[in-house]
Amino acid sequence: MIHPIFTEKQNFVKSAQRIASYIHKTPIITCESINRLAGCDIYFKCENFQKAGAFKSRGASNAVFSLIENGFKGDVATHSSGNHAQAISRVARFAGIGARVVMPENSLMSKIEATKEYGADVTFCVPTLEARESTLANVIEQTGAREIHPYNNVDIVLGQATCTMEILDEIQPDTIVAPVGGGGLLAGTALAASHFGQSVQVIAAEPSGASDAWHSFRTMQFVPSENPKTIADGLLTSLGLLTFPVMLRHVSDVLLADENQIVEAMRLMWQRAKILAEPSSAVPLAAILANRAIFAGRKVVVIVSGGNADIDNLPWK
Amino acid sequence: MIHPIFTEKQNFVKSAQRIASYIHKTPIITCESINRLAGCDIYFKCENFQKAGAFKSRGASNAVFSLIENGFKGDVATHSSGNHAQAISRVARFAGIGARVVMPENSLMSKIEATKEYGADVTFCVPTLEARESTLANVIEQTGAREIHPYNNVDIVLGQATCTMEILDEIQPDTIVAPVGGGGLLAGTALAASHFGQSVQVIAAEPSGASDAWHSFRTMQFVPSENPKTIADGLLTSLGLLTFPVMLRHVSDVLLADENQIVEAMRLMWQRAKILAEPSSAVPLAAILANRAIFAGRKVVVIVSGGNADIDNLPWK
Repeated sequence: MIHPIFTEKQNFVKSAQRIASYIHKTPIITCESINRLAGCDIYFKCENFQKAGAFKSRGASNAVFSLIENGFKGDVATHSSGNHAQAISRVARFAGIGARVVMPENSLMSKIEATKEYGADVTFCVPTLEARESTLANVIEQTGAREIHPYNNVDIVLGQATCTMEILDEIQPDTIVAPVGGGGLLAGTALAASHFGQSVQVIAAEPSGASDAWHSFRTMQFVPSENPKTIADGLLTSLGLLTFPVMLRHVSDVLLADENQIVEAMRLMWQRAKILAEPSSAVPLAAILANRAIFAGRKVVVIVSGGNADIDNLPWK
Repeated sequence: MIHPIFTEKQNFVKSAQRIASYIHKTPIITCESINRLAGCDIYFKCENFQKAGAFKSRGASNAVFSLIENGFKGDVATHSSGNHAQAISRVARFAGIGARVVMPENSLMSKIEATKEYGADVTFCVPTLEARESTLANVIEQTGAREIHPYNNVDIVLGQATCTMEILDEIQPDTIVAPVGGGGLLAGTALAASHFGQSVQVIAAEPSGASDAWHSFRTMQFVPSENPKTIADGLLTSLGLLTFPVMLRHVSDVLLADENQIVEAMRLMWQRAKILAEPSSAVPLAAILANRAIFAGRKVVVIVSGGNADIDNLPWK
């Protein structure tokens, strides 16, 4: 069942107002040569230019300032290997509260450094979901911090929805394609499209090597992510209880892209469109190019979810 | 003496109208962590997102369509190792005329391919100014094509000026920093700032390894570029007769950056601001970071001139 908070348009408007001064209104970029290749008109919504380098700053701002509005004064905590960690740390600093972040010890050095630079207290753990959760539970027990889950949190989903609210303020697309990992961005996109769009179709893009959302969508049963293998490191997680029902109700399709297609799409975005997209952000374009017929002649928005790529280890080397 | 066409504000307005449908209005991006490093508020005007990947599309569109308006029906020609070639080729195709481009045989493969993809007829020559000019003279003799020089052309300078007109429509900076090679962008920037700005200071940034503009500015005598050596391959050329007097009159200072500073600034732009800047476009930020005191606390626009970097050979590898 879709969470009742999501059925009220006003909750989306309120979230957009709450976070307006803490986030960027990001630009939309077009590229003639990619349009020729794809056979449709693509509008790249560049969340790689979002604060802390990813759309995650939207949800993080909404979740943290929603707590503050309700009189919360403690620390916040989360486990994350990347963009959510940076986003929470940054906004906690703005809110004048502490951030406690559990990171797997194999996280990218650049993401660890950025998280620390934003002032977070970082605890490392072995890179398994179990270790992340138990380490976070310990941190919370010791510090009394409040967990902000990266997608199983209504304020996070409402925050991510503001990206599509911005898109629809500027253009009227036929289709919006968002990558899907835990589904926070996807759910926010689909909900915003249903509240504020005019017959806008929302399609999810997922790596073949982490195709749990694809299986969940097709079987209409929750299928967890098991041993995912993909360069798109932001899309490894399972859907959540909040996001799965939204996907079933408001998403038109889930399309897959394999690793070669993802790397090729990422390279096209860098070389042709000059968009510094991280691998996860190249999955939508990869899925479009792998399914040209579906998009032919359409006006398609691609959400470029983030730009925290490892520029010392580019996948086409 | 400054060319009289440049003293009429109306000529700038007319150029902006002429090219409006052939170019992008490019976004302005900010980055908190770079601002902290620099000690000033930097606004990156992202001409890397311009059509054909660089500001050159502005001047090229203005020059080609100015010819078309005057009844010209032949081909256009130029010599260029890079962005000007792509820009001229692209806009000639739009105008329905041919483009003949002389390129040094050591040009980046990606730039050669892009120029050909835009439909230009490419002739290669050895990589010396002499060979470029004599080969171009041959091409022009054989084809009757009209040369469009990359900066010794009033319509080119008027076109480049539209970048700063866009900036001043959006924000009121204290200072604008532009890279200087032949001086087309710099002259356009300085002229637009003087016509449309409110006490906006314009500063040029140049590689130490190609410091002819710096010498010319300080001696107030034209000093040609001799054996320049820099990674900033768009800034190798000498100033021109049109651009040098504009620099003397309207530019406040020329600042230098060495090769290490340029690479470090480029890396910061990619890693922190997610701006895919080519080396030449990193020279302004490098010059700011090398001269922090001059910019302290100021509102500074950096013109990111282009994004045609070689993503297979990044300078920090």
